[in-house]
Amino acid sequence: MAAASSPAAITCRAAVAWAPGQALVMEEVEVAPPEAMEIRVKVISTSICRSDVTQWQSTAQPDLFPRIFGHEASGVVESVGDGVTEFEVGDHVLTVFIGECMSCKHCVSGKSNMCQKLGLERKGVMHSDQKTRFSIRGKPVYHYCAVSSFSEYTVVHSGCAVKVSPTVPMDRICLLSCGVSAGLGAAWKVADISEGSSVVIFGLGTVGLSVAQGAKLRGASIIIGVDTNPEKQEKGILQACNFNLNFNYDFFPYTYFVHGTGKAFGVTDFINPEELNEPVQQVVKRLTNGGTDYSFECVGDTGVVSTALQSCSDGWGLTVTLGVPKAKPEVSAHYALLLSGRTLKGSLFGGWRPKSDLPLLVDKYANKEIQVDDLVTHDMSFNDINKALELMLENKCLRCVIHMPQ
Amino acid sequence: MAAASSPAAITCRAAVAWAPGQALVMEEVEVAPPEAMEIRVKVISTSICRSDVTQWQSTAQPDLFPRIFGHEASGVVESVGDGVTEFEVGDHVLTVFIGECMSCKHCVSGKSNMCQKLGLERKGVMHSDQKTRFSIRGKPVYHYCAVSSFSEYTVVHSGCAVKVSPTVPMDRICLLSCGVSAGLGAAWKVADISEGSSVVIFGLGTVGLSVAQGAKLRGASIIIGVDTNPEKQEKGILQACNFNLNFNYDFFPYTYFVHGTGKAFGVTDFINPEELNEPVQQVVKRLTNGGTDYSFECVGDTGVVSTALQSCSDGWGLTVTLGVPKAKPEVSAHYALLLSGRTLKGSLFGGWRPKSDLPLLVDKYANKEIQVDDLVTHDMSFNDINKALELMLENKCLRCVIHMPQ
Repeated sequence: MAAASSPAAITCRAAVAWAPGQALVMEEVEVAPPEAMEIRVKVISTSICRSDVTQWQSTAQPDLFPRIFGHEASGVVESVGDGVTEFEVGDHVLTVFIGECMSCKHCVSGKSNMCQKLGLERKGVMHSDQKTRFSIRGKPVYHYCAVSSFSEYTVVHSGCAVKVSPTVPMDRICLLSCGVSAGLGAAWKVADISEGSSVVIFGLGTVGLSVAQGAKLRGASIIIGVDTNPEKQEKGILQACNFNLNFNYDFFPYTYFVHGTGKAFGVTDFINPEELNEPVQQVVKRLTNGGTDYSFECVGDTGVVSTALQSCSDGWGLTVTLGVPKAKPEVSAHYALLLSGRTLKGSLFGGWRPKSDLPLLVDKYANKEIQVDDLVTHDMSFNDINKALELMLENKCLRCVIHMPQ
Repeated sequence: MAAASSPAAITCRAAVAWAPGQALVMEEVEVAPPEAMEIRVKVISTSICRSDVTQWQSTAQPDLFPRIFGHEASGVVESVGDGVTEFEVGDHVLTVFIGECMSCKHCVSGKSNMCQKLGLERKGVMHSDQKTRFSIRGKPVYHYCAVSSFSEYTVVHSGCAVKVSPTVPMDRICLLSCGVSAGLGAAWKVADISEGSSVVIFGLGTVGLSVAQGAKLRGASIIIGVDTNPEKQEKGILQACNFNLNFNYDFFPYTYFVHGTGKAFGVTDFINPEELNEPVQQVVKRLTNGGTDYSFECVGDTGVVSTALQSCSDGWGLTVTLGVPKAKPEVSAHYALLLSGRTLKGSLFGGWRPKSDLPLLVDKYANKEIQVDDLVTHDMSFNDINKALELMLENKCLRCVIHMPQ
C-alpha cells in the first residue's frame, strides 16, 4: 500500500467482488485522485450492513462486477478535489450512501433526504461523471452506493461525507453511517413515537434494535420484538456482546446472545412467530388491546409489511417499512387495512438528511445519549472480511466492524 | 303508508333488493319501533352513493337479501327508544354509516372514527342485538350499514345520527352524510393540504370533486383531475348541473357536463389517461416538476393506488386512498415507492368523527363556505329510484337525490 499526500493515484488493497456471491478477493487497486467536489478518504473502519450482502449476492446487475462493496464507514480525508471547501486533509468523516447537495429542490425543502443530485447511486459509478475511480490494471472496478468502503482508500463526493469530531471513536460511529441512524430515524423522525405508546418491531437486527432504542428513549411503554431466529427465541430478549480480541477471528464465538440483559435496547416482549399456533398479529393485538400505535418492518420482506399493518391499531396505527427486500419487490395489503385509518410510510436512512442531521446523532453518541457500541458483535481485521460476510449471511452477528490496516 | 306518533310498528313503503343487482321493488315493509338507544327516522331525502350500488350488485353476501340499501340521508326523528336523551321527536338529523358512541377507546382518543361499538356494520343487522328492524310479512329484511334509507322510515342507533338545524335544506345536506364529507375530510383532515401545494385526484365523482373543492379552499395551486370517462374528457373540466324538474324523470337529461364552468370545483388540469401515449404518472410528474405533494385515489380501483403513489413526489408525497374497490381487494406497490419517502394513508368518511365533526361541515354549508348543491345532478322521486341506480351504474350522474313522499 502506498499512501499519497497530494492528489495523485494511489495503489492500495481492496476487497473486490468479482462475481455475485463469490468470496471477495484482496486485490491491489488503483484509486484515482478526487475529481472536482470529491474527496479521497482513507478508510479507518467499515461495518457490514445487510444491504452490502444482499447486493453482493444479487445477480440482477452482473455487469457491475468487479465491484467494491461497503458503505457504512468512517475515515480520514486524504486529499480533496477542486472546489472543495468544506473538508481539509485530515478531517474525520463518515461516508453516507445518500448525499445532500444542499441546493436541489429536495435539499432546499428541508423535508426530504431524496437529494436529486446525490441520491442513491445504483449504477456502480460516481454521480458526477458516471465513471469509476477504481481500477485494476486499467480495468474499471465498480462502486457501491458511491461509497465502496471495503478498500483502504476510496473516493466519495463531498456531498456524501459528513465531518465529525476527531474525538469520537471511528470504529463505532461508522454504525451511524447507515443502520443505527436508519432505525433511530424511523422511530424519531418518521414515526415520531410518542410517550407511553406501543410499538412492534419485525426483525431484530441492528436496524430493528435501533428502532427499539429509539422507541425506548421516546418513552414507549410496550416494545414488542418479533424475530424468527430460533437463537433469539431460545435466548429470550437479546443483547449483543462485543468480543474485541485483537482481531483474531478464531476466538470469536458464533453465538452472541445473552439471556435477559438485552432489555437495554428497550424490547419488553419477544415473539417468535414460528413457535405460535396463531398469526403473530393476533398475539400482538391481544398484548396491546387491539393493536400497537406503531409497527416497523425491519426484515426486508415485503410480505411482513402486511403483517405489520395488521398488527397496528385501526384508526391511527402507523407502519414504517425500512427493509430492502431480497425478493418480491411488491408490497401488498388488503385495502380495508388502510381504509380503517392506518398509515404506511417508508423511509431510507430514517428520513435523516445526512449533512443536516447526522452530526446531531454523533453528538448524542458522544454524550452517551444513544447506544452504539453494544450493537457491534465482532471486531475483525480487513483480512477476515469474508468471514464477516458469512456471519451476516448466517444471521450470527449484528454488526461486524472491519478495522482497516493503519 | 301509515305514520305513527308513538313507538309502535309502522308500515310504510321501502325499495327492497330481493337479490344482488336485481331492480329494487317497492314493498310494504314493517318497521319495528326503536329499541333502547335507537331512534326511528322519517327519511326526507336520500342520495345514492357508489357503495350502495357496489353492494347491491355484489354477490358476496347472498344471505343478506332481501335488503334495504341507502345510507346517505336526512330525515326527521319520528320516535325515540328507551334511554335516548340526545334526540327528540321532530329533530332534523343526518344518518351516518359509522357511528360514534363517545365512550370506546377509539371515540375517547379523539383521533379515530373507528368506533368499536358502532363501526361499519357488515352483517345487515343492528349493532345492538344483531337483528333487523324491517320485515315483510314476518320475514326479516336486512339493513345496509345500519342505516337503510331507501325506506320511508328507518331505525338507526342514536349514535349513528347527527342533529342538524331545521333551517338547512334536507335535500342537499344529505350529501354530507357520506360522499362530500369523505372528500373534504380526505383533503383537510387526512392529508391536511397546505397552501400552494399540488394535488392530483384520480376519479372525479362526488368524492373526487369534493377533494378538489377541499384542495381549492386550502389554496392548492395545482389540482389535476384524472378520469377515464370520455364524456368528462370531451367536455373538459366538468361541472354538475342540477335539473330540478318536479321529479318528472323523463325530463332529466342523461348527460350533465358543461364545458369549462366546473373550475368552481377547483380542478385546474384534466387528464384522460386513456387518451395518453404514456403512463399518466409521467404526465403528472411533468406538470408538477417531479410529482405532486398529494394524490388521492377516489376510483375504487386498487390498481390506481400504485399509480397515485407514483404520481406524487418522493421525499414527502402523500397518497390517500378513499375508494372501496369492486374487485381485487389487495393494494400493491413497489417497495421503493415507499422507501423513497412516500406515505400511503387510507380514510373512511374522510377521517371525520360523525358527531364531533359533521355539525361543523353542516355549518360551513349553511354559511356558503362549501359547495354541495352543484354536486346534485338529479332530483328524483322515490318511485324512480331504479333509474337513479342506473344513472350511477352508467356513470351519468354525480349525486341523484331521492325525495321521499311527504
